Amino acid sequence: MATVKLISDAEAGPQVAAVFADIRKTRGTDFINNFWRALAADPAALERTWAEVKAVMVAPGSLDPLIREMIYIAVSVANGCSYCVHSHTAAARAKGMSEAQYGELLSVIGLAAKTNHLVTALQVPVDPAFDMST
Amino acid sequence: MATVKLISDAEAGPQVAAVFADIRKTRGTDFINNFWRALAADPAALERTWAEVKAVMVAPGSLDPLIREMIYIAVSVANGCSYCVHSHTAAARAKGMSEAQYGELLSVIGLAAKTNHLVTALQVPVDPAFDMST
Amino acid sequence: MATVKLISDAEAGPQVAAVFADIRKTRGTDFINNFWRALAADPAALERTWAEVKAVMVAPGSLDPLIREMIYIAVSVANGCSYCVHSHTAAARAKGMSEAQYGELLSVIGLAAKTNHLVTALQVPVDPAFDMST
Amino acid sequence: MATVKLISDAEAGPQVAAVFADIRKTRGTDFINNFWRALAADPAALERTWAEVKAVMVAPGSLDPLIREMIYIAVSVANGCSYCVHSHTAAARAKGMSEAQYGELLSVIGLAAKTNHLVTALQVPVDPAFDMST
Amino acid sequence: MATVKLISDAEAGPQVAAVFADIRKTRGTDFINNFWRALAADPAALERTWAEVKAVMVAPGSLDPLIREMIYIAVSVANGCSYCVHSHTAAARAKGMSEAQYGELLSVIGLAAKTNHLVTALQVPVDPAFDMST
Amino acid sequence: MATVKLISDAEAGPQVAAVFADIRKTRGTDFINNFWRALAADPAALERTWAEVKAVMVAPGSLDPLIREMIYIAVSVANGCSYCVHSHTAAARAKGMSEAQYGELLSVIGLAAKTNHLVTALQVPVDPAFDMST
Repeated sequence: MATVKLISDAEAGPQVAAVFADIRKTRGTDFINNFWRALAADPAALERTWAEVKAVMVAPGSLDPLIREMIYIAVSVANGCSYCVHSHTAAARAKGMSEAQYGELLSVIGLAAKTNHLVTALQVPVDPAFDMST
Repeated sequence: MATVKLISDAEAGPQVAAVFADIRKTRGTDFINNFWRALAADPAALERTWAEVKAVMVAPGSLDPLIREMIYIAVSVANGCSYCVHSHTAAARAKGMSEAQYGELLSVIGLAAKTNHLVTALQVPVDPAFDMST
Repeated sequence: MATVKLISDAEAGPQVAAVFADIRKTRGTDFINNFWRALAADPAALERTWAEVKAVMVAPGSLDPLIREMIYIAVSVANGCSYCVHSHTAAARAKGMSEAQYGELLSVIGLAAKTNHLVTALQVPVDPAFDMST
Repeated sequence: MATVKLISDAEAGPQVAAVFADIRKTRGTDFINNFWRALAADPAALERTWAEVKAVMVAPGSLDPLIREMIYIAVSVANGCSYCVHSHTAAARAKGMSEAQYGELLSVIGLAAKTNHLVTALQVPVDPAFDMST
Repeated sequence: MATVKLISDAEAGPQVAAVFADIRKTRGTDFINNFWRALAADPAALERTWAEVKAVMVAPGSLDPLIREMIYIAVSVANGCSYCVHSHTAAARAKGMSEAQYGELLSVIGLAAKTNHLVTALQVPVDPAFDMST
Repeated sequence: MATVKLISDAEAGPQVAAVFADIRKTRGTDFINNFWRALAADPAALERTWAEVKAVMVAPGSLDPLIREMIYIAVSVANGCSYCVHSHTAAARAKGMSEAQYGELLSVIGLAAKTNHLVTALQVPVDPAFDMST
């Protein structure tokens, strides 16, 4: 199921084909997952989104790409995005996430969710010490 | 504002005082933030929650404590918990988060939120390749 | 899968049958989607919910029905309701949503999601200029 | 309160000052709201975010800018972003949102939220008729 | 802060005044909390919303009104609605919620939040035994 | 689909087998639902989670176990956890939830969701009367 057509390689126009080729080259795999095939229904959106993903998740930076994947998983779990959880858990494993790291990721996510809800239930006032605005 | 009384040091009974003392010793600071003072309205809940936080966030493991804080922030942002965002951003800074790391954390959170919503809008079907159930 | 029985036309009692008939007449189609068949397990809830949907989504007003569908999609995406995203994207298309409008809808949803998360991460204080309470 | 310093005009370096100037010119007002002052702690992020907001919310397109603001509000409400709700409700009013339109926006948001939750509680299966993937 | 004017008793027209009077009579208190004063900016919305709250939360039924308040708190916490958490925690206390009941409510909310996130992270497939659709 | 292997009885090591046995004994059924089989990929997490579920959901307390299930459902619906909604609706039915109680549960959840969103849209300021912090 999807709300748009998934674009196969055969159906890809030049703009889509170019993005698909760059995804393949960047990732070193022939596999194009469904997110990109769904976005490809709007070639400009596909190009824009891939450029942003490449800049944020792939480009060198101060956080290891595996750590970025784990943060991505955390957000996706809290936002309840099934597809994103599946695809980025696979990505994290492909980048070397160990079972121990995965177990700790789940523990932090579970604890954060619990305390987020407790704090909201208790409506705890923010300590002035946390303010960095001035 | 809060839905419960915030317990001051003077109001703390022995069970609460013991947890407060362990928080101070573990963190190496006299400061007890409001989350613990709110939980202290239910001493058993305070004790249980602190034990879990200590085990998940402080104990040695395969993820650096700073990384755990960044994952915690990610979940808290997605869950919209203002207090948690404030307290764990302060904790991450206290553990050495650089401005570059913070900037990348925000970029990953922002991108994940955007793509989470795009995926949900497009209702992208999960690729069979992501299944690990068998 | 569902947590309740889906009521077929053959299983519909008089109260359910009357609502189904009004849905068909209002929409000009014989198709009754599963939401109504699930709600029909509680005929009074079915009647109440249809009345509200009809008043808010169908009745004449100052917002075009297509615009209302797009707002509905936006809320459903942010709330992570798969079924609702599917059904209201179909409804928006049935009411004439163009591919360009759909693309812009997705862009606004994606941008809003990203900036919602950035604002929450930064805990930006509300500007006094936005206050309309007095 | 905020997790970062809010940058005043006096503290703005050249990159920030240029963005602030473009915001003022684009909107025809001297007022720079706090979101931009908070983002300005990371000048590159400020520049990137403003460029995206301008492209999605301001540039000509097939959806009226007021409609885009209403969709933005809908997402922000569902994501629980207080600041965003405040700032974009003000923006929608500045773009001419009438009281009747605002009332209908709230009605659609409220109804969508209710039915989103009912659908999730009932776990309604998606009708095959809604599938657009092939 | 609010996005609409809060209507005082002096500013209330006849339709608003009638609803305010019914709220006071139904609850046995002169206090009108800000939710109703904000809704009163749209008298028809105020009337409609109060009628629904009265039917769902006040009318006799199979669930004790205190239990309904606790369910309401649970939803409001998960949706991150500060105002709602405050107002319905006060309402639950006014209806006799004990400290032990409140502590258990928080424990269930916290546990559910944690396991919700774990289940979403693990993407656990629904057991066929749970299906009630046929 | 799942992001981890589901552990069958035959694959269970001693730690997992012991938890499975306790689940069976506590619930008086041979059925082990998929949540536990997914968690069993990390035996320590399985043990810890079952201990918490048993303490919060099964142990005697001031809230009836059926009421706890209904609160759990409410949180799970608002957090959009399909699996959790399925499993705890089944659990509530197994504990005697009547159709009338289920209908009222859905009504409260739906109303809370709607008013949560209205309150957030209106940004209603918390009444000072609700503050319990001092």
